[in-house]
Amino acid sequence: MRFFSDNAAPAHPKVLEAIAGANRLDTAYDGDEWSRRLDGAFSELFGTEVRAFWVTTGTAANSLALAALCPPYRGILCHKDAHIEVDEAGAPGFFTGGAKLILLDGDGAKITLNAVAAAWEGIRKDVHQVQPAAISITNATEYGLVYRAAEVARLGEFAKEHGLALHMDGARLANALVSTGDSLADMTWRAGVDALSFGFVKNGGLNAEALILFRTGLADEIAVRRKRAGHLLSKGRYLAAQLLAMLDKDLWLDNANAANAAAQVLAKAAPDRLVYPVEANELFLKVSAEEAARLRAAGFDFYDWGPGEIRLVTSWDQQGEALDRLASAIAAL
Amino acid sequence: MRFFSDNAAPAHPKVLEAIAGANRLDTAYDGDEWSRRLDGAFSELFGTEVRAFWVTTGTAANSLALAALCPPYRGILCHKDAHIEVDEAGAPGFFTGGAKLILLDGDGAKITLNAVAAAWEGIRKDVHQVQPAAISITNATEYGLVYRAAEVARLGEFAKEHGLALHMDGARLANALVSTGDSLADMTWRAGVDALSFGFVKNGGLNAEALILFRTGLADEIAVRRKRAGHLLSKGRYLAAQLLAMLDKDLWLDNANAANAAAQVLAKAAPDRLVYPVEANELFLKVSAEEAARLRAAGFDFYDWGPGEIRLVTSWDQQGEALDRLASAIAAL
Amino acid sequence: MRFFSDNAAPAHPKVLEAIAGANRLDTAYDGDEWSRRLDGAFSELFGTEVRAFWVTTGTAANSLALAALCPPYRGILCHKDAHIEVDEAGAPGFFTGGAKLILLDGDGAKITLNAVAAAWEGIRKDVHQVQPAAISITNATEYGLVYRAAEVARLGEFAKEHGLALHMDGARLANALVSTGDSLADMTWRAGVDALSFGFVKNGGLNAEALILFRTGLADEIAVRRKRAGHLLSKGRYLAAQLLAMLDKDLWLDNANAANAAAQVLAKAAPDRLVYPVEANELFLKVSAEEAARLRAAGFDFYDWGPGEIRLVTSWDQQGEALDRLASAIAAL
Amino acid sequence: MRFFSDNAAPAHPKVLEAIAGANRLDTAYDGDEWSRRLDGAFSELFGTEVRAFWVTTGTAANSLALAALCPPYRGILCHKDAHIEVDEAGAPGFFTGGAKLILLDGDGAKITLNAVAAAWEGIRKDVHQVQPAAISITNATEYGLVYRAAEVARLGEFAKEHGLALHMDGARLANALVSTGDSLADMTWRAGVDALSFGFVKNGGLNAEALILFRTGLADEIAVRRKRAGHLLSKGRYLAAQLLAMLDKDLWLDNANAANAAAQVLAKAAPDRLVYPVEANELFLKVSAEEAARLRAAGFDFYDWGPGEIRLVTSWDQQGEALDRLASAIAAL
Repeated sequence: MRFFSDNAAPAHPKVLEAIAGANRLDTAYDGDEWSRRLDGAFSELFGTEVRAFWVTTGTAANSLALAALCPPYRGILCHKDAHIEVDEAGAPGFFTGGAKLILLDGDGAKITLNAVAAAWEGIRKDVHQVQPAAISITNATEYGLVYRAAEVARLGEFAKEHGLALHMDGARLANALVSTGDSLADMTWRAGVDALSFGFVKNGGLNAEALILFRTGLADEIAVRRKRAGHLLSKGRYLAAQLLAMLDKDLWLDNANAANAAAQVLAKAAPDRLVYPVEANELFLKVSAEEAARLRAAGFDFYDWGPGEIRLVTSWDQQGEALDRLASAIAAL
Repeated sequence: MRFFSDNAAPAHPKVLEAIAGANRLDTAYDGDEWSRRLDGAFSELFGTEVRAFWVTTGTAANSLALAALCPPYRGILCHKDAHIEVDEAGAPGFFTGGAKLILLDGDGAKITLNAVAAAWEGIRKDVHQVQPAAISITNATEYGLVYRAAEVARLGEFAKEHGLALHMDGARLANALVSTGDSLADMTWRAGVDALSFGFVKNGGLNAEALILFRTGLADEIAVRRKRAGHLLSKGRYLAAQLLAMLDKDLWLDNANAANAAAQVLAKAAPDRLVYPVEANELFLKVSAEEAARLRAAGFDFYDWGPGEIRLVTSWDQQGEALDRLASAIAAL
Repeated sequence: MRFFSDNAAPAHPKVLEAIAGANRLDTAYDGDEWSRRLDGAFSELFGTEVRAFWVTTGTAANSLALAALCPPYRGILCHKDAHIEVDEAGAPGFFTGGAKLILLDGDGAKITLNAVAAAWEGIRKDVHQVQPAAISITNATEYGLVYRAAEVARLGEFAKEHGLALHMDGARLANALVSTGDSLADMTWRAGVDALSFGFVKNGGLNAEALILFRTGLADEIAVRRKRAGHLLSKGRYLAAQLLAMLDKDLWLDNANAANAAAQVLAKAAPDRLVYPVEANELFLKVSAEEAARLRAAGFDFYDWGPGEIRLVTSWDQQGEALDRLASAIAAL
Repeated sequence: MRFFSDNAAPAHPKVLEAIAGANRLDTAYDGDEWSRRLDGAFSELFGTEVRAFWVTTGTAANSLALAALCPPYRGILCHKDAHIEVDEAGAPGFFTGGAKLILLDGDGAKITLNAVAAAWEGIRKDVHQVQPAAISITNATEYGLVYRAAEVARLGEFAKEHGLALHMDGARLANALVSTGDSLADMTWRAGVDALSFGFVKNGGLNAEALILFRTGLADEIAVRRKRAGHLLSKGRYLAAQLLAMLDKDLWLDNANAANAAAQVLAKAAPDRLVYPVEANELFLKVSAEEAARLRAAGFDFYDWGPGEIRLVTSWDQQGEALDRLASAIAAL
């Protein structure tokens, strides 16, 4: 019973079906009928015109977006614990051609307007210091907290006023959305987001993520950058079909609801152990090494997250008995 | 009936089965049981110790390999019609950090030892001119010709003598191999190849290619570069399973044989129209615009390839009636 | 008596004087009084508003300009013998982040409108092939030919029509200008040039070149890129002073006239040996190995330029006896 | 009377003389007699075999060194206030191709062995996190503190044990050296330094810095990278001559002694206002806005360095009356 990461969960059966359903000859790359439906499907979903690109990883989505939003000689304001900073092997530096991540503090990997404003103020406006070109936030954050739409909008406003672009790493956007109850439009383009890495793999997909451009004028550049980075698969229909299957009948929301609900079951088992409020599908628990060993002995797997702390992540498919047993085991510690 | 490209063909049913078979929770990235079997499976296949990495495109495989074989300030000798030069949106420049492709002439996109030696001689050995660090060849070539193992070995010898690495773009290596009858070992590492982009997608795969390192010391660097380029998928097992399915009972060779045989059926229908000998699964035919229109009217699709020339590519699944009808249609022109 | 290159000539005494004259404390970088006069001085010279940046090499000027004119994922149309392609160690690839030089043929390193148009036509307008963003020409060319203003204007027109930028490598622009009699304005911005590498070092400078932007909106980007490339010297006044000295009383034109005149003296000594017409200050002569040896025995130094060919370059300071003796020696071969 | 920066001071007369003395034709680039003497002169100075390269800026020296010591996909441990991080416009990111600066805390811009060790421990040894390849320190630091040779040696030992390279930004190494009394050898190669940016411009040079390689095997790569970055000046002799003049009769040490002595004069005037001990030629003083205004009214120029703090930098030429008057003015505040 593994609670390592939603990254490792199986794909939803509908996703596999969609792949099988796409298994006939069609135009290569993204000229196929599934890929050609993406712009329309996501535009409808967001309630505004967007350009949608499949990619196979969140790292690719993030880095392609940042490369289009930030020239090599400028920087990106982000949290010091942001995935782009700590878990992508320097991909933003590679894709942008050496742009700098300018790191901010903040509880639970959330950045505040104050932190952004202070960083902005601290940078001399000359050629010696790297000037920011963009802000990047992760929603839900790397510690399972969420930005409400209104919080994103405040950052979006600051960005606009200062000529900065706004990128959202939405690897777990679905979880944030069902947690906040905010609308997809309010959370993204209405809040000033220019480009969104829209995660599906952690949420029941197999290997398709979406890069959504609200600033549609960037689409031609992104199309070339995707190819140039080796991310234009020749049989793109198998990715597009996954995304369409996830959107169909709101499967993506159902999956996120399931994962979040599972997280709440665990959270309720140990309210005093929570390092952060559980707002999405990640839990960070104060658990001693000895207690962690006991949980493992009972058959549960998870990450140690620093001394006396463990991380649990729930997935779309983790309902039922194993979950309850883990909840009981935690409660019984 | 589409003869555009093997790129667009469906995936083989065994590949889809393998994907479905991998649909259970396992360790993320390449820590799963399928991915962990790759080094062993490919080492056995090649008869020597190799390191094998799944990637989703040939462009990624090529560029990752070239980045590890050539520093930013040196160059790669390749044919002027090489896929890395004309069809990858400058990906080698991106991945290497600006290394230069040094272009050679040669019939049918093959480079000869003479062409390589002449290029080498023509470069002043100073800091002003870009010095080569690698040779890259494509087998089968972009025009459907093949290098025999002995030809590769001659280039490999030159490479070794001059301190150059040798890379092979084997997007259609399977087709070259069954065409020449050479062994996989003779064609690659025994001939001096350091890194191989081993194509499976054009040959019945869904979206998994293999990057094979014979110079195994490069593996750690490639692992990091793959991640950094956004090519480390979180559910890698679905790629690894595809590759294992292709190797199983030599499916990859069967598929290549089928595609090559289909190409021969077409070649025999129009021996006088062939621009190049048909040595793999691509045909370039002298066909007037009017004749091309007639073929299209009869329901066949293909690329125009310059004035008075068309390109046909056959796939693993193109046997039977459609093929015979196309052969007849060509013969009847 | 060395006729290797104008690159190696001494600096003009006025340039040394100017450096000495700048030897007092002033604001660092380009905040000093000399640097602050550059925009004005060059704007007056060109008869239009320009932004002028000192740099220390032509390679830096070329590469900074190209990086601002061409994104990493596009290409630059240039001659296959262009200095940026063959003699700058791949600097354009480094500064642009991997943009591609798309190479054209043409006599004497000149590119024609036809060659540009044919290259343009030959590139499929898709994401697989690298799309051009700029044209770069060298005037005078690497073989000592010149573009007339009208020729530049035709390329400029094509560029504008196709959304391309136009860069001129003017390492020897002064020589081209006095040779053609065209005005500086006609030769550059009126002909559609967006950025100019304006050479002074080969023409009597010590180590200051000028990068001139006619598209002044690029100035902020260039300022940052210059710093980022380590080309913002802390005591910039010593460079600015050189440039101002060269402009003063048209010293730069006098020097170019002197170098060109010297070249004509040599050209007249051997009209039948000229590989190219002598339009600036470079001569390429058909001279056998035995003859070359005789010239060297007589004390003259120069480059061999392929079998049976030598290159001579004259400088601003090569008048008088040595020149006449070389002319006689050539005539006497 | 300006105390902004040693960056802005005039060049020493001997340096100007040396430039004038080099004003005759010689081989271009670094083939001239002055440039060819550098390796020998610096090897003698350091008491070991080194390779010495002239460049025109410390940023170029730093970035070229770091690019040779750290691949694009790894990182460089340095202080968060290091010049390479805060004042070089992201040059290390550009030259390395996107390597990451991994930032450490520490008083007065000095990094301690503990800080390095803690950072090392905090990085998971996997492909997701950027692995360090080098340590870079600045001596004297950006706040005018110095590392003693023994401190450098402890970092050098850690570096060696962990497979890291060690780079020293010695923009003010001369000042650190005369301050500590340590030998040049002990401070650099005997302490494990692999590459040194050896500053001369702040110390009385005009526009020549030296990049010193103790790991001489990197010389070929550096030579190419220097050219490729536009830093191979065609008349290199004017740079080499400056460096030789600075070494001649220990002019570089005399100048550093003079600057340090000037700083001590000021330091003694206001011992209670010092933010850091004055160990080289920079002073950071607690001075209110009102007091700063008074100093400026008295004719002194300097930087504000955050609220209630100013920075003064003394130069090789700042002896005498102005200095004493400033000292008195500070004492009288």
